[in-house]
Amino acid sequence: MSKGSELWGHAKQRIPGGSMLLSKRAELMLPAGWPAYFDRTEGCRVWDLDGVEYLDFGFMGIGTNILGYSHPKVDEAVRRTIDKGNLSTLNAPEEVWLADRLVELHPWADMVRYARSGGEVCAIAVRIARAASGRSKVAFCGYHGWHDWYLAANLGTDDSLDGHLLPGLEPRGVPRELAGTSIPFRFNDLDGLRTILANDPDVGVIFMEVQRSTPPAPGFLEGVRELATQHDAVLIFDECTSGFRRTLGGLHLHYGVEPDLATFGKTLGNGYAITAVVGREEVMQAAQSTFISSTFWTERIGPTAALAALDAMAEEDAPARVHALGEAVLERWQESAGGAGLTLSLGELPALATYTVDGHDPLLVKTYLTSRLLEEGFLGGPVLYASIAHTPDLLDRYFDALSPIFGEIADLGDEGMRAALPDGTAQSGFARLT
Amino acid sequence: MSKGSELWGHAKQRIPGGSMLLSKRAELMLPAGWPAYFDRTEGCRVWDLDGVEYLDFGFMGIGTNILGYSHPKVDEAVRRTIDKGNLSTLNAPEEVWLADRLVELHPWADMVRYARSGGEVCAIAVRIARAASGRSKVAFCGYHGWHDWYLAANLGTDDSLDGHLLPGLEPRGVPRELAGTSIPFRFNDLDGLRTILANDPDVGVIFMEVQRSTPPAPGFLEGVRELATQHDAVLIFDECTSGFRRTLGGLHLHYGVEPDLATFGKTLGNGYAITAVVGREEVMQAAQSTFISSTFWTERIGPTAALAALDAMAEEDAPARVHALGEAVLERWQESAGGAGLTLSLGELPALATYTVDGHDPLLVKTYLTSRLLEEGFLGGPVLYASIAHTPDLLDRYFDALSPIFGEIADLGDEGMRAALPDGTAQSGFARLT
Repeated sequence: MSKGSELWGHAKQRIPGGSMLLSKRAELMLPAGWPAYFDRTEGCRVWDLDGVEYLDFGFMGIGTNILGYSHPKVDEAVRRTIDKGNLSTLNAPEEVWLADRLVELHPWADMVRYARSGGEVCAIAVRIARAASGRSKVAFCGYHGWHDWYLAANLGTDDSLDGHLLPGLEPRGVPRELAGTSIPFRFNDLDGLRTILANDPDVGVIFMEVQRSTPPAPGFLEGVRELATQHDAVLIFDECTSGFRRTLGGLHLHYGVEPDLATFGKTLGNGYAITAVVGREEVMQAAQSTFISSTFWTERIGPTAALAALDAMAEEDAPARVHALGEAVLERWQESAGGAGLTLSLGELPALATYTVDGHDPLLVKTYLTSRLLEEGFLGGPVLYASIAHTPDLLDRYFDALSPIFGEIADLGDEGMRAALPDGTAQSGFARLT
Repeated sequence: MSKGSELWGHAKQRIPGGSMLLSKRAELMLPAGWPAYFDRTEGCRVWDLDGVEYLDFGFMGIGTNILGYSHPKVDEAVRRTIDKGNLSTLNAPEEVWLADRLVELHPWADMVRYARSGGEVCAIAVRIARAASGRSKVAFCGYHGWHDWYLAANLGTDDSLDGHLLPGLEPRGVPRELAGTSIPFRFNDLDGLRTILANDPDVGVIFMEVQRSTPPAPGFLEGVRELATQHDAVLIFDECTSGFRRTLGGLHLHYGVEPDLATFGKTLGNGYAITAVVGREEVMQAAQSTFISSTFWTERIGPTAALAALDAMAEEDAPARVHALGEAVLERWQESAGGAGLTLSLGELPALATYTVDGHDPLLVKTYLTSRLLEEGFLGGPVLYASIAHTPDLLDRYFDALSPIFGEIADLGDEGMRAALPDGTAQSGFARLT
C-alpha cells in the first residue's frame, strides 16, 4: 500500500471526509489506489509521498494554478513577505495595492474586500448585497459554496425533500428558518428569472456564474443586467472559477456585461489563499452598515501572492493562453476519441475543459480513465484545467497515453470496464444548477 | 504626513472601512497619526512604511503572535513549504499530522476540521452542531465573529431595534428570517442559561468563550456542561482568542471542563492563517451529513505553520510564560498607576491584559495613552497581549515610558487630556456579551 493510501485511511478517522475539500477526497477520483497526498510540485508535475512523479493533466489544484505549480515569481514574492513578516498590529500595504490593481482591471468597480476562501467571499458579497438592497431573498444560478445562504436552496418543505435541487449539497444544520430565501433559476432562462422577480418583491440579489459549461445565449447576460436594474436588485457575478481564464479579470469583461459586485478566488493567487469581492462604490459602501471583520483576512501572503500572480499572468499572457490551450485540447480530445470510434460531448468553457463519452456510463468512464491515466503517470480524468505549464511536448505525451485508452473504452464497453475495475467506481461529487 | 497615514486615506476609498479587520482601523487607535501600515517585523518590533521602529506593547497582531513576530522556526517551516509547493490536486499531509497533534493535546476530542479564519471556523462549528442536534437555535455568550448565525442576535423586532444587544455589531444584510435563532446568555449566569433551555426546546447548541475578562465562577463551566448534557445540546467552547495563552491547548484544559467541540484560531499558526474546530467523533461526524467544503482550506502553509508553532510553543513553554508575564504586567500596571495616585480596574485574563483607569473616561484615556506611547516609540494603549518577545529589558523600557504618562493622566484629568488631543478621541470598537 502506498504511503498516501495509508495516510488517507488514517485521515478519515481524524478529519470528517478526510479532506477539507470534497473534490480532493480520494474516493471521488478512484475507489482505491489514488495517491491522495503530495510531497512537492513543479510546473504541472506532482510527486506523491513515495516520490512517484505524476503529470497533472486533470484538476491542477482544482482550478487554482493557471501559472502552473510553484511559479518562481509568485513564490519569490511570498518568500520576501515571510522575510518581512506576515502579520502585525498594523496593516499590510499590499492589500491596498491589490485593490488598486483589481479596480484598474475592472473599470466599472471602485472598491474591494478580501477573504481567504471562495465560499466565504461569496457570503460577504451576499451580506453586502442584502444590506444594500434591504431585501433578504437571493435568486441564484450555479455553484457558490457551502454557506447557509446558498444551501438554504436545498431545504425542502420537510426533511425528506431536503437536497433534491442540488444533489450532493446536503443542507443538514442549515436553519430551516432560511427555507425559501434562496431561489434558483436556470442558466439562459431569462423568463424564469423574470417570473421570480415579478412574483417576489423580496428578491434583492441576483447571484450567478457568468458561464460554467454552456456559453450564455445571445442577450442572456444583458437581459439579466436589465432585470436587475429594473428591480433595483444587486447583480453579483461569481467569477471564483471563471475569472482569469480568458481575460485578465472576470469572464464578464469578455462578454461586456457589468455586474454590481464580482467575486474572485481560485487562481487569483495561483495556489495561495486569497479571494476578493470587487464592486461599485454605492453597493460596496453598504459593508459599512454591517459587521464584516476577521483577523486572518489581514495576513500578507494572500495579497502579495495575488499581486505577483497578476503580474505573471500579464507577462505570460496566461488567460489567453489557457483559453487557447483549452480550445486545442477540446479539439484533440474529439479527434482522438473519434479515432477509436467514440464521440464526446464537450464542456464549452475551454480553460476548464471536460467531456463525457456518448453512450457510456459517465462515472464508469471517469473511473476507468482516471485509473488508466494514473498507470501512465498522469493525474487525470475526463477533465483538463489548463495551465501554462502544460507545454506542447507534455501535451503530446498526454495524448500519446490517452489515445490507446479511448481504444480500450471502445473495445471494453461498459461491461468490460466494470470488469476491469474490481474496486468499483469513483463516488460522484455534487450537482450544479446550470 | 507619514506614508502610512497617506496610504490609509487612500485605502478608505478602495476598501470599505480601510481594513478587513475592524480592530486594525487606524481610527480605532487614534483619530489621526496612527502609522496604520507595517513594512517589517521582528520579535515585538514593527517598522512602519517610513522605517520608524516601534515596540508592539499593545495588540501583537490582535492576539495572533504569542511567539512574537517572525519566529524563525515557524518562518523556516513555511519557507520549506513554499519550496515544496503550497497546493496541488492532491492533499497536504500536514493537515493530518496537525489533526493528530490537536487531538493529542485535547484527549476528549477525536476529529478536526480546518478553515482559514476564526469567524468561518465558528460558522463550521455551528453548522456541525446544528446538524448533530437537529435543532436550529443557539444559546451563546461572548464574541464569535461576523457570520449570519451570530449577528442574528442583533436583529430586533424591527429595524429601529437592530443592534441594541451587541453595540457595534450591525446586522444589516442578515436575513430577518433568522431573528430569534441566536439567544444570548450572560457569563456566570447559569440560571439564565437554564431558563433559556427550559423554555425553548429548539435550542440545540451552546456556544461560549471559556473566559474573556472575568474568570468563571466556581461551578459555572461545570454547570453549563451539565445543562448541555441534560438537554442533549452540543457545547462549543470558542477558544479562538483564549487558546494557548495558559496551557498548550484550550483554556478549558486548565479548568478541567470538556466541551463537545472547540474552535481555535488567532495564535494557532503564530501569525499565519489557520483555524480549527476539534471535537468528539459522534458530533464531528455530522459534518458528513452536510456540505462543508472550500478549496483554500487545503492549502499547506496553514497546517505547516501550526505544526511548527505548536512545537515552538512547547519548546519555549510559551503558554505558561505569557500567562506569567501577563500576571506580572497586571501587577506592575497597578503599582505604576498607584505611584501617580490612580487606581485601575484590571481585565483578568492575564495573557490578554487590559485595564481602565477608575474615574476617567475610558475612550479618552485610551486615546491619550495610545498617542503618548506612540511618541515614546510604542504601539500600545490600555492593553498588552503578551508574547515571549516581551523580554524583561523591553518590559522595563515600556514601564519607564508608561509611568510618567500615568502621572500626566492624573495631573491633566479628563478635561486636560481632551485639550491635549486636538483631533478628538479614537472610535470605539464593538461590545461583547460578557
